[in-house]
Amino acid sequence: MPVVPDFSVSPTQSLLAGPDVDLRQIDPSSTPGFEGGKEAGKARLAAGKEVLSELQEKLFAESRFGSDISVLLILQAMDTAGKGGIVRHVVGAVDPQGVQHHAFKAPTEEEKRHDFLWRVRRELPGPGMIGVFDRSHYEDVLIHRVRKLTEPEVIEERYGAIREFEAGLAGAGTRVVKVMLHLSKEEQKNRLTERLERKDKHWKYNPGDLAERALWDEYQQAYQIAIERTSTPDAPWFVVPADRKWYARIAVQQLLTDALAAMQLSWPKADFDVEAEKERLAAS
Amino acid sequence: MPVVPDFSVSPTQSLLAGPDVDLRQIDPSSTPGFEGGKEAGKARLAAGKEVLSELQEKLFAESRFGSDISVLLILQAMDTAGKGGIVRHVVGAVDPQGVQHHAFKAPTEEEKRHDFLWRVRRELPGPGMIGVFDRSHYEDVLIHRVRKLTEPEVIEERYGAIREFEAGLAGAGTRVVKVMLHLSKEEQKNRLTERLERKDKHWKYNPGDLAERALWDEYQQAYQIAIERTSTPDAPWFVVPADRKWYARIAVQQLLTDALAAMQLSWPKADFDVEAEKERLAAS
Repeated sequence: MPVVPDFSVSPTQSLLAGPDVDLRQIDPSSTPGFEGGKEAGKARLAAGKEVLSELQEKLFAESRFGSDISVLLILQAMDTAGKGGIVRHVVGAVDPQGVQHHAFKAPTEEEKRHDFLWRVRRELPGPGMIGVFDRSHYEDVLIHRVRKLTEPEVIEERYGAIREFEAGLAGAGTRVVKVMLHLSKEEQKNRLTERLERKDKHWKYNPGDLAERALWDEYQQAYQIAIERTSTPDAPWFVVPADRKWYARIAVQQLLTDALAAMQLSWPKADFDVEAEKERLAAS
Repeated sequence: MPVVPDFSVSPTQSLLAGPDVDLRQIDPSSTPGFEGGKEAGKARLAAGKEVLSELQEKLFAESRFGSDISVLLILQAMDTAGKGGIVRHVVGAVDPQGVQHHAFKAPTEEEKRHDFLWRVRRELPGPGMIGVFDRSHYEDVLIHRVRKLTEPEVIEERYGAIREFEAGLAGAGTRVVKVMLHLSKEEQKNRLTERLERKDKHWKYNPGDLAERALWDEYQQAYQIAIERTSTPDAPWFVVPADRKWYARIAVQQLLTDALAAMQLSWPKADFDVEAEKERLAAS
């Protein structure tokens, strides 16, 4: 058996982005804590699937015996940064029964009539589940800030509301892992070009994407501020360099694995007499 | 490249169970239409993943361009027959973004206050999605018949209500695929024994399972009647021999693949000027 390359430093340490984060200092093409290249990364991803999968099953199993803990992975990024690939290749490795995935789109009329956290509360993971948000309540301080969809004072209040909301989640047993996939503007151009060159990718392209791209610097600033204001020990942000898809995938896989491992999960003990059940079964 | 073994006859033909089905004539350990053994089956499952995955992506892509078609896979079976394995190994191969999975448990008090189809309607797949029901409205004519939870006349009415409901789904663009995993009583004993022998499987064992097992023949009869009354061209039943887990998995994979292939999916055509967008992008 070949040795599977591992992180020298876990992304849980190396990619943690606290209030003192400076996005401009983080190279989107870097691979912090991982010395190998693409092939080593693929081997790492494959090897990590079983570890993650077993942890997820334990989380699920415990919930059947009364535990109400859960995990919530929040994915935020510019277009083409690879949220979909994370869902497919990292989240896709665990049992679909244990995953609650939700992609947040532009809010509906009904959603607009409520507080911005209303629709998010409705999609929180149940006990034993891994929730995955493809976009989230952070859109309400990102695109809303860049596009001036909301008054600045209201946006200021939202950072506090988010901190309080997420602290409540943590208090109720939900481990929150927030990921910004950090892409370079150049790599986005490459990926958009690919979408235009391949007929099976045209459906993923939207002419409106270029309008967002034109506001690149404003979005970077909005992310910078959002992370500064909302990264807490209870609900930390991780900035994941995303120009190399393989790196972003193994990094998020490891973040999830570490989050689950920290929950100290174990197989629930039988609440029945195993030997007696064996006899009943044999006689059936 | 080794040749991947394929079905000689597709399960869509060989496992179709119409109103004239006779469950007693179907051997749970058989492998209809597939000449290979376990290793060949595993190769078939691996090879089928990409095919299914691409079809799912097309279904999803079309929905982004206005199509409202979807697929609904209904899984019914006795305990340990392998519903979970189907979800993990067959459904788990497609993008989690395109799957809506729901496990129906004993109804809540709120659900009981409504018509038996009420909770089912709330979980139907949206446009472009593959819905997966782990148990379903069929419990209301299976356990309800066996356990006499509902008056016989009401159960009789339910078959008609189900036919009408499912015809409506088909009319609205949802392709319904109903699967009964057909297990033998002997193999169930083996699988329950394994759950008792392995500490990491104890959480899956419930002493109440033996009470259901004691009603084996009654359940077989209830399935027999349900399939007779509700298998229609719009919403056909398939009886999948399930004593060999590998066979059940490739069979359901092929049923899903055939269902999607019959929808004649294609990549949506760009609704924008591709060359003009390439120029705009280059300048951005």
